Amino acid sequence: MSVITAVQTFDIRFPTSRELDGSDAMNPDPDYSAAYLIISTDAGDGLEGHGFVFTIGRGNEVEAAAIDALRPHILGRSVEELLDDMGASWKLLVHDSQLRWLGPEKGVMHMAIGAVVNALWDLKAKRAGLPLWELLAGLSPAEIVALVDFRYLSDALTPEEALEILQRAEPGRAERHARLLVEGYAGYTTTPGWLGYSDQKLARLAKEAVADGFTQIKLKVGASLQDDIRRVRAARQAVGPDIKIAVDANQRWDVQEAIEWMAHLAPYDIAWIEEPTSPDDILGHAAIARGVAPIPVASGEHVQNRVMFKQLLQAQSIEVLQLDAARVAGVNENIAILLLAAKFGVRVCPHAGGVGLCEAVQHLSMFDFIAVSGEKDDRMIEFVDHLHEHFVTPVDVHGGCYWPPSAPGAGAEMHRRTLASYRFPDGVTWSADSPGSATDLVREQALKEAPADA
Amino acid sequence: MSVITAVQTFDIRFPTSRELDGSDAMNPDPDYSAAYLIISTDAGDGLEGHGFVFTIGRGNEVEAAAIDALRPHILGRSVEELLDDMGASWKLLVHDSQLRWLGPEKGVMHMAIGAVVNALWDLKAKRAGLPLWELLAGLSPAEIVALVDFRYLSDALTPEEALEILQRAEPGRAERHARLLVEGYAGYTTTPGWLGYSDQKLARLAKEAVADGFTQIKLKVGASLQDDIRRVRAARQAVGPDIKIAVDANQRWDVQEAIEWMAHLAPYDIAWIEEPTSPDDILGHAAIARGVAPIPVASGEHVQNRVMFKQLLQAQSIEVLQLDAARVAGVNENIAILLLAAKFGVRVCPHAGGVGLCEAVQHLSMFDFIAVSGEKDDRMIEFVDHLHEHFVTPVDVHGGCYWPPSAPGAGAEMHRRTLASYRFPDGVTWSADSPGSATDLVREQALKEAPADA
Repeated sequence: MSVITAVQTFDIRFPTSRELDGSDAMNPDPDYSAAYLIISTDAGDGLEGHGFVFTIGRGNEVEAAAIDALRPHILGRSVEELLDDMGASWKLLVHDSQLRWLGPEKGVMHMAIGAVVNALWDLKAKRAGLPLWELLAGLSPAEIVALVDFRYLSDALTPEEALEILQRAEPGRAERHARLLVEGYAGYTTTPGWLGYSDQKLARLAKEAVADGFTQIKLKVGASLQDDIRRVRAARQAVGPDIKIAVDANQRWDVQEAIEWMAHLAPYDIAWIEEPTSPDDILGHAAIARGVAPIPVASGEHVQNRVMFKQLLQAQSIEVLQLDAARVAGVNENIAILLLAAKFGVRVCPHAGGVGLCEAVQHLSMFDFIAVSGEKDDRMIEFVDHLHEHFVTPVDVHGGCYWPPSAPGAGAEMHRRTLASYRFPDGVTWSADSPGSATDLVREQALKEAPADA
Repeated sequence: MSVITAVQTFDIRFPTSRELDGSDAMNPDPDYSAAYLIISTDAGDGLEGHGFVFTIGRGNEVEAAAIDALRPHILGRSVEELLDDMGASWKLLVHDSQLRWLGPEKGVMHMAIGAVVNALWDLKAKRAGLPLWELLAGLSPAEIVALVDFRYLSDALTPEEALEILQRAEPGRAERHARLLVEGYAGYTTTPGWLGYSDQKLARLAKEAVADGFTQIKLKVGASLQDDIRRVRAARQAVGPDIKIAVDANQRWDVQEAIEWMAHLAPYDIAWIEEPTSPDDILGHAAIARGVAPIPVASGEHVQNRVMFKQLLQAQSIEVLQLDAARVAGVNENIAILLLAAKFGVRVCPHAGGVGLCEAVQHLSMFDFIAVSGEKDDRMIEFVDHLHEHFVTPVDVHGGCYWPPSAPGAGAEMHRRTLASYRFPDGVTWSADSPGSATDLVREQALKEAPADA
């Protein structure tokens, strides 16, 4: 019997806006950030659970406050009780009747729950001595079903149907496990396509991506139609006809606008159009899907919970489901989403990038391949090649593939030196006299602190 | 020219769980709370802008942190610039590219924006010397349209259509203004129907409600079918056949469950079924609406933004739209929602109760009657008779009606003594050795503070 003795939170921010990495039509100057937590115990094994919410800068402190609000639910609790029934632990956090009011099951509070849930899974996997994907892929179908809250899902997926899906996949698990180790899991890269890059940089990075083995790249679009046509054409010229090019509008358009804009890009053979409009607009995505066919519509990185994913599938709004490791309430809810996708026969190509999202989400895709959908040939995980150096076990991506991690845990653990250097606003990265937006942010912070709360 | 000199935030909580006021199937023990703010200026007129997010206890501090995160956008800014173009001010807050990541436009961050927007409207109305409803009802149709962000709405409502709706209502404004002062605006009461009350208390309060002039009461349902049948029957016996009885499941059911449960309550002539399932489930509500017809489906108090309301209307999911003053991004977004309701011909019966929600939302209904829908005969505002004593200008509800407030402002200003006494955790209400959940909360707070953040 051991007990959770501390839940530490950290406001970690990287000054990515200085180089316009990550710029798109809605997010011109993100500072990739993490509201990060570490769960410690008195087990004496030195193992901790690490988890995070990914944000793009301002407001990261609000996420940290939301994680703090969950502390009373786990601090002082039995580690074994929490970890042995992760289905119950999920419900404990999600169904706090007072905290529910702040969503319910969406936005700041729900993402904070996701970080705590993922930190618990990290601890559980480390205690089992397994990478998360292998831990999950070793659970029985019934154990997996017990992790999922079917509330609000039963009109689309019952526990019995979920069990059937998992049982159907069970006989092939060992074979797929072996295949995964040999073949890896395909990735695609968004590195060339940020809106802030010149055409020359775009073309150069696109060629490098192909040389690195990627078979798909993705470009940000949506700010200017003429620019988009020029950039997509430049990318197509750079990579040739056999490489897939997806585009991502980051919620920029209304329904009719999306359909008209995409008509201009269609000649360049577009692999999918991602986030054409508000992630909340299920009916809008369905109308866009009809209007841009046969170009597939993709969405998910901002889809708030399983209830929204259920409807996106029911309404045939998306052909590509892009779950995110740090948007919904953690591993459990993403398992629900993987089961929904399997039920509706829709392929899952997770959102990643940011900071830590690649490290975290690969576990879900690998688990899905082995134990849920049994598919990977039509799927790929997003990859962006930055900020991996801050992780204890960074992703291994080469030859255009993610290679299965072998280190125990969920992959989200940052180096201690990163936590110290990038802590906002007192880490050396922010407190030093730094150029660009760092200064702006420090000024803002000062402004914020001036008239203290009453 | 004056400048915003301070934005103070307060974590205010009332120990309502001690009496089980406000108990329902999903919220057994709420402590009604407000993340409250005061905007001060150097204008020398003594006027302040007050606004709040309503929560039910835990997590109120997260909302306060979210309001703090918005401070840099308004502190030090010109008062006139912000107040003269409230459409632009709304966009400034909602479209902060980094803070958007925390929603987008939903949950903690969006509600905090609503509180700031409403505080700005409070200040604007006070400076105009008018109650908010009268200020809004005096704007031209073009001025009202300029308050609304039509992004993501244009497939259902264009600015031109909104202008037409408002222009159609313009000739009758003066006559309806006069009628409102004479007739008031109908209310209905939820006071009798909390789940924690005995049948005797329910029947007594129901009779009192009728004696007070209300023509509709509402009962919480969803915890136990047999209890619900017994309670609805008792209520029907108490009030007779001519008083409407609505029921509210507070998101308790899945789709099929809702349809089956309501079949058992249908014989008691149900005015509407409110929140039968997840507020996110547009398609689920549509299926329920078909399944329980002719009983109308109502929802809105947890509907996160205008994009969701748009779809609830497009999918014919609701017949009663229950907007809330403190869930979406304030007055501007609620005007968008009123325009959508007018376009689709759906009646608006706002959610209220909690703390301050009655005070705030009456302004929106009265404005709607005069300048938007022109209707009030089929509409009513929820009323719960508690915590009004904490407001400087509490609602005037008598004879079953809300009576138009005449004091300048948006109605949300609490007494200074309330802000002092109920501040959590250091106000006297919480710091004293109090009974019941107060103690629990203080204990939790202590637990929370024990292992300080790293």
